[in-house]
Amino acid sequence: MENAVSFSGSSALITGGLGFIGSNLAIRLAENGASVTVVDSLIPEYGGLLKNIAPVADKVRVNISDVRDVFSLAYLVRGHDFLFNLAGQTSHLDSMLNPFTDLEINCRAQLALLETCRKENPQIKIVFASTRQIYGKPAYLPVDEKHLVRPVDVNGVNKMAGESYHILYNNVYNLRACALRLTNTYGPRMRIKDARQTFVGIWIRHALESRPFEVWGGNQLRDFNFVDDVVDALLQAALAPHSSGKIYNLGSSEVISLKELAEVILKICPGASYAVRPFPAERKSIDIGDYYSDYALAGKELNWNPRVNLASGLAKTVDYFRARLQDYV
Amino acid sequence: MENAVSFSGSSALITGGLGFIGSNLAIRLAENGASVTVVDSLIPEYGGLLKNIAPVADKVRVNISDVRDVFSLAYLVRGHDFLFNLAGQTSHLDSMLNPFTDLEINCRAQLALLETCRKENPQIKIVFASTRQIYGKPAYLPVDEKHLVRPVDVNGVNKMAGESYHILYNNVYNLRACALRLTNTYGPRMRIKDARQTFVGIWIRHALESRPFEVWGGNQLRDFNFVDDVVDALLQAALAPHSSGKIYNLGSSEVISLKELAEVILKICPGASYAVRPFPAERKSIDIGDYYSDYALAGKELNWNPRVNLASGLAKTVDYFRARLQDYV
Repeated sequence: MENAVSFSGSSALITGGLGFIGSNLAIRLAENGASVTVVDSLIPEYGGLLKNIAPVADKVRVNISDVRDVFSLAYLVRGHDFLFNLAGQTSHLDSMLNPFTDLEINCRAQLALLETCRKENPQIKIVFASTRQIYGKPAYLPVDEKHLVRPVDVNGVNKMAGESYHILYNNVYNLRACALRLTNTYGPRMRIKDARQTFVGIWIRHALESRPFEVWGGNQLRDFNFVDDVVDALLQAALAPHSSGKIYNLGSSEVISLKELAEVILKICPGASYAVRPFPAERKSIDIGDYYSDYALAGKELNWNPRVNLASGLAKTVDYFRARLQDYV
Repeated sequence: MENAVSFSGSSALITGGLGFIGSNLAIRLAENGASVTVVDSLIPEYGGLLKNIAPVADKVRVNISDVRDVFSLAYLVRGHDFLFNLAGQTSHLDSMLNPFTDLEINCRAQLALLETCRKENPQIKIVFASTRQIYGKPAYLPVDEKHLVRPVDVNGVNKMAGESYHILYNNVYNLRACALRLTNTYGPRMRIKDARQTFVGIWIRHALESRPFEVWGGNQLRDFNFVDDVVDALLQAALAPHSSGKIYNLGSSEVISLKELAEVILKICPGASYAVRPFPAERKSIDIGDYYSDYALAGKELNWNPRVNLASGLAKTVDYFRARLQDYV
């Protein structure tokens, strides 16, 4: 990213900073001379792993605490220029089984963190990782930011509320906060142990273990972002002064069906195979059919466009996990 | 309402049932032969008053408990045909001062109540009282249900989440739930002690006490519903089988500026007067400018149209409070 140099000498706090996207962001920031603190709860079912930040372990300050812990956050937010607010419960199915846990993390803790920033560090610029999940089943494609939000699971409702608090605190209290609605993100350091973060994770695990992975349905269209592109977007959103109060879709013009995606993985992974299965009943009620984004607004206002195509991003991802499968399974 | 007879012999639970709209609904249902249980916390800053249900005190079962009290609700939801879910924190300003209280009531307790219904009474039909507040500052007028929700205060975010949980539980768990987005509602039994529920309340109190009331700004356009019309809508939404999973705006075609509304009150109340004041600073950031609804969908699908015009509704309201001012101030 052209702007990476701008972070040299700055100080950034990353919630969920040992997780998939957070750790990739921490590495990029640290390598570009930023002072980085990562906060992570290391809850085993979530995405955080200490090994994720191995390349910058000596440069990054690690603080193990949960975003629900308002006391630790009140101390930790002080003195930073940027807050990348990435901590979250990401499993849609878990949000239905434990709706109050999801509410505490994705809704209440977000409100608490904003109250904390308002009191302890009103100068901080906040970038919130929201999700395309809050759109629910698209009424039209590609989905732009004018599309109604109609979440189809508890996770979606709580992420929607968490995002809204950010925009609200920007508008009412002159905090500077913006939100990126991420689409399916994949890449090194994603959770591959199970499908809690993304189904692509479990596919790649199975492919590397030469076990068939399951494709549910298969004809659904999706767009995917390689994590480096998402890191670009987070950084550009943090720097763009006019991003405050705004919501931006991320996305990709490379729209692909799940079956086609499976075929791409087959080409990269010798020994991989898959089986197409009907959608499981408990998932069907929260499925959204086809989804892909219109991300023209991020293109225009953040000067952001994804640069890594799916074949090359997936190849990098598979290479990463092939070399350290035991750390992730 | 033509359908009132349909409630004879049915059983209804009303959360917030001693409050403004809840008590008017309880009276209507009881008078039409329904078995009615009202649940209310009687928190002094909210709208509940035992005297509100005086006309049907011997017919209605009163249970004092808070919607945050999941244990009492687990018992209370059993055996009813209808749940009118009206309990809420309504003050926008209080929601900014005590955001977590608002979250607990308007967001978390709603999720808990739906979980409770799912387990204890999955047959119940739920009508949720949502609010036009969640639209925020209108992008166009009149505002229909296709308008984006962009709440401008913590109350709006939490009501938005509360509403979404209802639609979600309808869609995922086959609970039957719908939501009405109420606009400014006024009438007998509203809170007039202060502006926590509606500014019309404090205006009428001052008018009856021959003290000038304050009109902030004055040119903002609004629509208003008399409470009897809102009770009609709640009942019709409860009965309409195709309402489940739907969201309906309420509203009025009688669009009026606040200054014009003040003039109507002056005509009804001899001795009333008002002063126009600039918008207070702490309110300005959460003001939404002009608002009025497109309620054609409720007209079409619920066969609902407001029937009481503003002059006659306000006259009834003033008569009500004139006769029992001491009970309400």
